[in-house]
Amino acid sequence: MDKEGILIVVSGFSGAGKGTIMKELLEKYDNYALSVSATTRKPRPGEEEGKAYFFKSKEEFEKMIAKDELIEYAKYVENYYGTPRMYVEEQLKAGKDVILEIEIQGALKVKEKFPDTLLLFVTPPTAAELKRRLAGRGTETMDVIEYRLGRAKEEAQGIEHYDYLIINDRLDECVEEVHRIIQGEHRRVSRNQRMIENIKRDLKGE
Amino acid sequence: MDKEGILIVVSGFSGAGKGTIMKELLEKYDNYALSVSATTRKPRPGEEEGKAYFFKSKEEFEKMIAKDELIEYAKYVENYYGTPRMYVEEQLKAGKDVILEIEIQGALKVKEKFPDTLLLFVTPPTAAELKRRLAGRGTETMDVIEYRLGRAKEEAQGIEHYDYLIINDRLDECVEEVHRIIQGEHRRVSRNQRMIENIKRDLKGE
Repeated sequence: MDKEGILIVVSGFSGAGKGTIMKELLEKYDNYALSVSATTRKPRPGEEEGKAYFFKSKEEFEKMIAKDELIEYAKYVENYYGTPRMYVEEQLKAGKDVILEIEIQGALKVKEKFPDTLLLFVTPPTAAELKRRLAGRGTETMDVIEYRLGRAKEEAQGIEHYDYLIINDRLDECVEEVHRIIQGEHRRVSRNQRMIENIKRDLKGE
Repeated sequence: MDKEGILIVVSGFSGAGKGTIMKELLEKYDNYALSVSATTRKPRPGEEEGKAYFFKSKEEFEKMIAKDELIEYAKYVENYYGTPRMYVEEQLKAGKDVILEIEIQGALKVKEKFPDTLLLFVTPPTAAELKRRLAGRGTETMDVIEYRLGRAKEEAQGIEHYDYLIINDRLDECVEEVHRIIQGEHRRVSRNQRMIENIKRDLKGE
């Protein structure tokens, strides 16, 4: 097996539980590293530097863009969000499978720069369940629910670009399934070119 | 998850242990079905009809070819070998993952007819170990070893066409890995079009 880790982008419907899945995955197995985004938005109470985000000023962030220090970035409502390149590359070289939790636009930008990126899309088991989760615990306004539903429709259009559909029915099974899929990917022929070349060369050397 | 099974072709170097892996896999899990080939060669002592092969006369076999009852077939040293279509299709419809153990030429023919076929290639962990296994238990003549080595070189050229490289180091781990890879494949976006269409339709229906 080639030693380098796999870059993994996880996206999914709002409320599909991707954050929880990733948290469990990281607690359970030590071959994963979670990429922390940089942002110019202000920290909310309890958000620690380097845990939820790396908090940057607008000037710092724009300098990172200029120096190509971000794998991808986007601007939402006046704030920048992006994925710092250095941590990701260090962890991949160290053999860790690095997880980015970003939405589809960012996912496609990452895939363009790193074609070997594995794209996972998390969904509740049924559309009915998806709607229940979009509605939250009955405490959301109709506006919020409508907005989420609109986004879900957009997100659904993008699923074709992903490699695997992760169905989050039972959390523990789902975490195992994500782990199995990522570990299985390590055996892809396209990810083992070096070993294949070695075998070919050694057979010829006879 | 779509209900239909996955068609799987397993090939690999001679002595890589693919037969043993498949036997263990079928004993351990009941979601697999092994396709039995048809052949015109004579049964060897102990070979039961429908277990090792379906034994056919030349006329019967050629009738199967004419009626398109074989997914693939080839002729080696005056004898036909082929994969009967009906069993494979029945088992796939019943939701079984169907395994064909055939060499690369057949594998590529199957992939052409059934583009969703999953191609697995089994190899010992290193080229040195591969050579040891090609040499057998020291009872083979140099001619036989040379012949096997020549075939291994040819087979190595075909690995790129396969999806996964299965490294048979420890048998029990290898069996688990094959199982994980196949089950993970069921989550491929390309194998879940129906579910994705349902989600899209249900979200629009709001």
